[in-house]
Amino acid sequence: MEVLEKKRRVFVLGGGISKFAAERTDGNMRDWINEAVLEALEDSGTRIEDIEHSTTSYFSDHFDKQLKAGAIFHDNIGMCPKPNVRVEGGGGTGGLAIRNAYAYIMSGLCDSMIIFGAENMGRQVPSDVAQQFIALASDTDWEVQVAGFYIAYYAMMMVSHMEKYGTKEEQFAMVSVKNHRNAMYNPKAHYPMDITVEDVMNSKMITYPYKLLDNCLLSDGAACLIFATEEWAKKHSATWEKKPTIELTGTGCGTDFMRMADRPFPYPGITHFRGKREASAQAYKMAGVKDPLKDFDCFEVHDAYSGVELVSYEDLGFCKPGESGKLMEQGVFDLGGELPTNTSGGLIGFGHPVGATGIAQGVEVLRQLRQEAHPKRQVELNAKRGGMDSHGGTGTFCVINIFERRD
Amino acid sequence: MEVLEKKRRVFVLGGGISKFAAERTDGNMRDWINEAVLEALEDSGTRIEDIEHSTTSYFSDHFDKQLKAGAIFHDNIGMCPKPNVRVEGGGGTGGLAIRNAYAYIMSGLCDSMIIFGAENMGRQVPSDVAQQFIALASDTDWEVQVAGFYIAYYAMMMVSHMEKYGTKEEQFAMVSVKNHRNAMYNPKAHYPMDITVEDVMNSKMITYPYKLLDNCLLSDGAACLIFATEEWAKKHSATWEKKPTIELTGTGCGTDFMRMADRPFPYPGITHFRGKREASAQAYKMAGVKDPLKDFDCFEVHDAYSGVELVSYEDLGFCKPGESGKLMEQGVFDLGGELPTNTSGGLIGFGHPVGATGIAQGVEVLRQLRQEAHPKRQVELNAKRGGMDSHGGTGTFCVINIFERRD
Repeated sequence: MEVLEKKRRVFVLGGGISKFAAERTDGNMRDWINEAVLEALEDSGTRIEDIEHSTTSYFSDHFDKQLKAGAIFHDNIGMCPKPNVRVEGGGGTGGLAIRNAYAYIMSGLCDSMIIFGAENMGRQVPSDVAQQFIALASDTDWEVQVAGFYIAYYAMMMVSHMEKYGTKEEQFAMVSVKNHRNAMYNPKAHYPMDITVEDVMNSKMITYPYKLLDNCLLSDGAACLIFATEEWAKKHSATWEKKPTIELTGTGCGTDFMRMADRPFPYPGITHFRGKREASAQAYKMAGVKDPLKDFDCFEVHDAYSGVELVSYEDLGFCKPGESGKLMEQGVFDLGGELPTNTSGGLIGFGHPVGATGIAQGVEVLRQLRQEAHPKRQVELNAKRGGMDSHGGTGTFCVINIFERRD
Repeated sequence: MEVLEKKRRVFVLGGGISKFAAERTDGNMRDWINEAVLEALEDSGTRIEDIEHSTTSYFSDHFDKQLKAGAIFHDNIGMCPKPNVRVEGGGGTGGLAIRNAYAYIMSGLCDSMIIFGAENMGRQVPSDVAQQFIALASDTDWEVQVAGFYIAYYAMMMVSHMEKYGTKEEQFAMVSVKNHRNAMYNPKAHYPMDITVEDVMNSKMITYPYKLLDNCLLSDGAACLIFATEEWAKKHSATWEKKPTIELTGTGCGTDFMRMADRPFPYPGITHFRGKREASAQAYKMAGVKDPLKDFDCFEVHDAYSGVELVSYEDLGFCKPGESGKLMEQGVFDLGGELPTNTSGGLIGFGHPVGATGIAQGVEVLRQLRQEAHPKRQVELNAKRGGMDSHGGTGTFCVINIFERRD
């Protein structure tokens, strides 16, 4: 059966983010979701009554002790009896929700999709218990049993990277300095701070080579994005004609062995993220990206630990393996540099409420492409293409999404 | 931009199910997933190396204490570095995974999708703790705080149904008798049993009107299905030409308020599942179903509690509200009746390892349409269309999928 079909495309109509903070004691996850959703509805000029489908993004039942929280958020914002789906991929969950909006709209199951995500990391459990919960996101049969925990996995990777390529602790400290600084111009950020490389180097050693200021914190918060076809947007979005047109042009997802010891040497071993290479290759192919460093104007990069951002630069194709530290020193990724990264502050400066994080990255790319960011964190005029890198486990789960300005 | 595109369609190439049991002490979830996946690969004549994408289905982190279990299953069956997504919608999770296969394949993100689901309900936690975990799948701020738990919610609904329509306890006991009996011819079933209405009526009262034998048990187990486009199947499935062609022709998802007290009177109030009416309307429209009782040849219906199956008959449009008990008495839903339901044994007879359940329903429909079921549970020759009803919360989340035989 062959039919003449209009080629569908998926557009980003608006976004919203709640305040990210260490321990939000005002309300609970459903209230933070409302904050983000209301901002996204206003930004997109749409009404919840018109939106056809939702996707929920949150990481784990363990933090909030509310199972089926996705259905509760969907109910709470007034979406019943319409369809919902919750997606999850560890730290890559928010990126997956964006990918899911692409899949469901392109499939024809809906013409409009609201995605919202949150995590309650700080309030209900003490931080050592939260760290234990996060450890359960590695292999509980083979890694946790031998006392594995997240910063140790990432420290091991970074020690290997330092040995193999000569990457220096000071270079990844620069990631922390940049991201905390960018967060100063993001009013929603959890951890804005004006610090120096020396401050990072002198902060408390957690697991060599990572010091306290190399790491993101546990944050509370929520984020939301609204997607639709052009036809739907023309009919239901009061801001469609008034704001720049932003299209979701590429999405990719890649995975890797859970257990680090399973990752094949020499390629890519534990110094690189195979899943991220796979995900970015898929997304770049869809969007026609040939030279990522030149073809993107901004990029939100996963930086749960400062070194992860450097390794990600290499796996995202911004430079060759081992060269990221040097480029970081040269200011390539600073505001005003060739490719500003984590203008929002990233996970380190903005925060990391897991289910919200990837969606918040998307909102930042939207703001940048529309030239709506705070002047002190806004990238150059005429930014046309932005990317985001959402990452779970020890790079076990990677999702890359690409947004482009179309006018 | 208008382009000439081939209309995509999604086919069901094969399925597999592990043994369902109360407490499987052989291996863990990843082993049961392997059991189901190996059966599905053999059934579909495909190789894991060729399949492009996976979807994982499981309900809650709480039971297995393994976060990101979806990524582990995906790794364990040899799918890395390819893309994965985990979906969740409470008891509707397995149905959502099938819907997700439809969305991702139709979107063009992939041409083939393996979905697998499991739950570890019995082994790691005592049953009273498991019941507490399940209670966390209702609204923890508004329902659990007033001592709400699942059988009580469903008992309240059924008391209302009995008062409103005169439905009798004996009528829903018949559901239990039918489903335990059908399970006797399903070698994977957790709870096959030849019992009478009197046995159900005389079993221990749990929460009026539900007695022990009205309820499903907590099961361990896994299930798997493989979907693809026709083009992919022709290239990669050794059994494509040999087995009947089964297409996924409809999918729908509907939701309802989490909190029962929010559900509007008089329509549909708490005696019916608004989400199921919504989901079935969507799926029936897609598949061109006009008269569900006549248009389906078999249907797997959510029966976590016997009365839910009766109410579902009404919301699925098999009869008018209040008439399901009478039709049950008349044998309409028995093997040999007009529309045999839960030929697998359903949740009551087959079992309910949550993440596997909806997928197992799909496998049963596949077996029935291919005439591959055990002769004593096989529906009439020439069955052409089967449905499945996957349901979470107190009908908070409903997913309907429709499979059709195409030759």
